[in-house]
Amino acid sequence: MSNATSTESEPKIMNGVNVTTLFDTIDAVKGNAAIAKFNFRAANTWIGGDKNRSTIKEFTGALQEQRTNGKSFVFENGEHPVLLGEDKAPNPVEWLLHALIGCLTTTTAYHAASRGIAIDAIDSQIEGDLDLRGFLGLSEDVRKGYSAIRVHMRVKTKAEPATIKSLTAMSPVFDTVSRSVPVTVDVETY
Amino acid sequence: MSNATSTESEPKIMNGVNVTTLFDTIDAVKGNAAIAKFNFRAANTWIGGDKNRSTIKEFTGALQEQRTNGKSFVFENGEHPVLLGEDKAPNPVEWLLHALIGCLTTTTAYHAASRGIAIDAIDSQIEGDLDLRGFLGLSEDVRKGYSAIRVHMRVKTKAEPATIKSLTAMSPVFDTVSRSVPVTVDVETY
Repeated sequence: MSNATSTESEPKIMNGVNVTTLFDTIDAVKGNAAIAKFNFRAANTWIGGDKNRSTIKEFTGALQEQRTNGKSFVFENGEHPVLLGEDKAPNPVEWLLHALIGCLTTTTAYHAASRGIAIDAIDSQIEGDLDLRGFLGLSEDVRKGYSAIRVHMRVKTKAEPATIKSLTAMSPVFDTVSRSVPVTVDVETY
Repeated sequence: MSNATSTESEPKIMNGVNVTTLFDTIDAVKGNAAIAKFNFRAANTWIGGDKNRSTIKEFTGALQEQRTNGKSFVFENGEHPVLLGEDKAPNPVEWLLHALIGCLTTTTAYHAASRGIAIDAIDSQIEGDLDLRGFLGLSEDVRKGYSAIRVHMRVKTKAEPATIKSLTAMSPVFDTVSRSVPVTVDVETY
């Protein structure tokens, strides 16, 4: 390794995020907005009763198909016996909490890195209230999903809590869940 | 096993769902709405960069703490290299798709069972569009999360597609995502 090469090409890493690549990405998107268009996908097969299995493989982004190496992530949904299942896996509303808390955490780490804010640790709790009368169709006044979700994040950093909170607002899952997204469901029977 | 016992206590199973217990649950909730109040939870720890890990353990429901046997589900979030990660796990917006498609599937199986509709198979695809300019803060007009999510469900059943579609509308994650939920984020630094 020559000194000249290592000095000039050393990427800036903060919070485990390659900030050099992050700013390169931002510059690329500024030059061509199409780079920013992503399409994420999953397939799911019902196994029976409370159990089904999702497979997550390719997605589209940065103008091409990604994860085309045959790699796949396979995860199941389940339900606890109190919800008539066998508790072989988290249930879908628990998975939603995993997605949301994970997105808030990743977003905090990335956006702090982009602003030069060092983060040493993030530990969070998330909880959601759900009244099963909605799902069971027992009351028109009770919604079927969560009525409220609360997150508490404990962040080791020199930045102010309000600064960190402002970063979390950039989270895509937070935006999706707290602002709603149109979901179209098309059903084919055979 | 005596004939008398097996005849009288045999539960009715449809789509792998214990319909006898399902109707018992509905009756119990009708008698005491507090039984229907659930609180689901997760904890999350940032590992660094794109990686964080959620632990899903106890939840509250049916008037008591559930899954108190020490069992825990542990899953990670990651990001693909095109999003500056190492692709060790799905990313949060992919996990959201897993939660949503799983909930639509479980909801279909359960509600079909409650109506006496036999389901032999469910295979689904889900996709979501996301413009990274929102996350990157490059445009106020572009939202940070999904702009649209589309689901295609292929269901082996004698019921009509419209009937099955009406069942999917009972899904708690579908309701949460398509109608929004208030999410409060509290940040503590140290």
